[in-house]
Amino acid sequence: MFVTFEGPEGAGKTTAIQFCAEQLRESGREVMVTREPGAGPMGARIRAMLLEEGDVPPRTELLLFLADRSNHIATIVRPALDRGAVVLCDRHADSTLVYQGYARGFDLEFLRQANAFATGGLVPVLTLLLDLPAEVGLARRTDKNRLDSEPLEFHNKVRAGFLELAKANTERFVVIDATAPREHVCNLALEAIRNAS
Amino acid sequence: MFVTFEGPEGAGKTTAIQFCAEQLRESGREVMVTREPGAGPMGARIRAMLLEEGDVPPRTELLLFLADRSNHIATIVRPALDRGAVVLCDRHADSTLVYQGYARGFDLEFLRQANAFATGGLVPVLTLLLDLPAEVGLARRTDKNRLDSEPLEFHNKVRAGFLELAKANTERFVVIDATAPREHVCNLALEAIRNAS
Repeated sequence: MFVTFEGPEGAGKTTAIQFCAEQLRESGREVMVTREPGAGPMGARIRAMLLEEGDVPPRTELLLFLADRSNHIATIVRPALDRGAVVLCDRHADSTLVYQGYARGFDLEFLRQANAFATGGLVPVLTLLLDLPAEVGLARRTDKNRLDSEPLEFHNKVRAGFLELAKANTERFVVIDATAPREHVCNLALEAIRNAS
Repeated sequence: MFVTFEGPEGAGKTTAIQFCAEQLRESGREVMVTREPGAGPMGARIRAMLLEEGDVPPRTELLLFLADRSNHIATIVRPALDRGAVVLCDRHADSTLVYQGYARGFDLEFLRQANAFATGGLVPVLTLLLDLPAEVGLARRTDKNRLDSEPLEFHNKVRAGFLELAKANTERFVVIDATAPREHVCNLALEAIRNAS
């Protein structure tokens, strides 16, 4: 069971994932918590390149995200799914559509094809979108990264992009109001996973 | 002036590039000799990943080649072309079509789109294909790499793929018989570049 968590930085994805993982493990499920980019030895090398190499050209950035994704799916996610684990993944293909497509303007159709290539066609059964206004997400951030220096308009496009994807893919998206108290967000996420099982 | 050298390992690309670079420099041209993958600091990191990380999944390998290409074009090739240099590049987009497409079976149309994305639409004005039978190329190889362990059929597909591309893109391809003596191959390459200038 492949579940992805999407939404802006500051939405509380990490907290929700940890909570769901604990609860599902208590129910006796094998749970793998993972993320994109950065899982596994190759993921770590790619993540380091994205963070350490001064100005990464935007096209290179996208292709490195996709390289990380293809390696992540082939060497980590698929083997875990094959042995019956629940895989909870912090960001996945929808982040690429939103950040590189809706926000940075790369062609969405190309991005869809590139995602399908990278994942070998694997699609999450459930995508939890932790939605909140851009200003709220930014105000919550403590460990700033490159995205935090983008103008508010960028973050508004990100939010709008995620909501559009959720509307176009209702069969797998569940939108959670991430301005709600953390415990409430966590419980809604867990409920959605249990309903999808 | 962007010139690419294509062909199997053992065809003599390196020798021909060095010869052309020297001759063109003697004529007073600025010449940049470069290659894919592996140019620049990020290229070196990507090349190291391709060589050092045990089994790189085939899709990841392709995406890393493309990431290298996009960075190479944006940060090294385009600036050199903008200042009027002749850029001689050892392998480029055609190698991806041939090795990942014709030989490994990935969809050619997707590879074309992915190449166009990575290069931002830049196409060489001249592509020199150093053509020779697979057996001859393999017999000449001294520093073996992963490709050398592929069966002969793979190398035959590579040769056929390159020749098909040359036939479909006669406006930029010049095919050179690489079984000819090295000096002859070098002179034909130089002549083709001078004709295209």
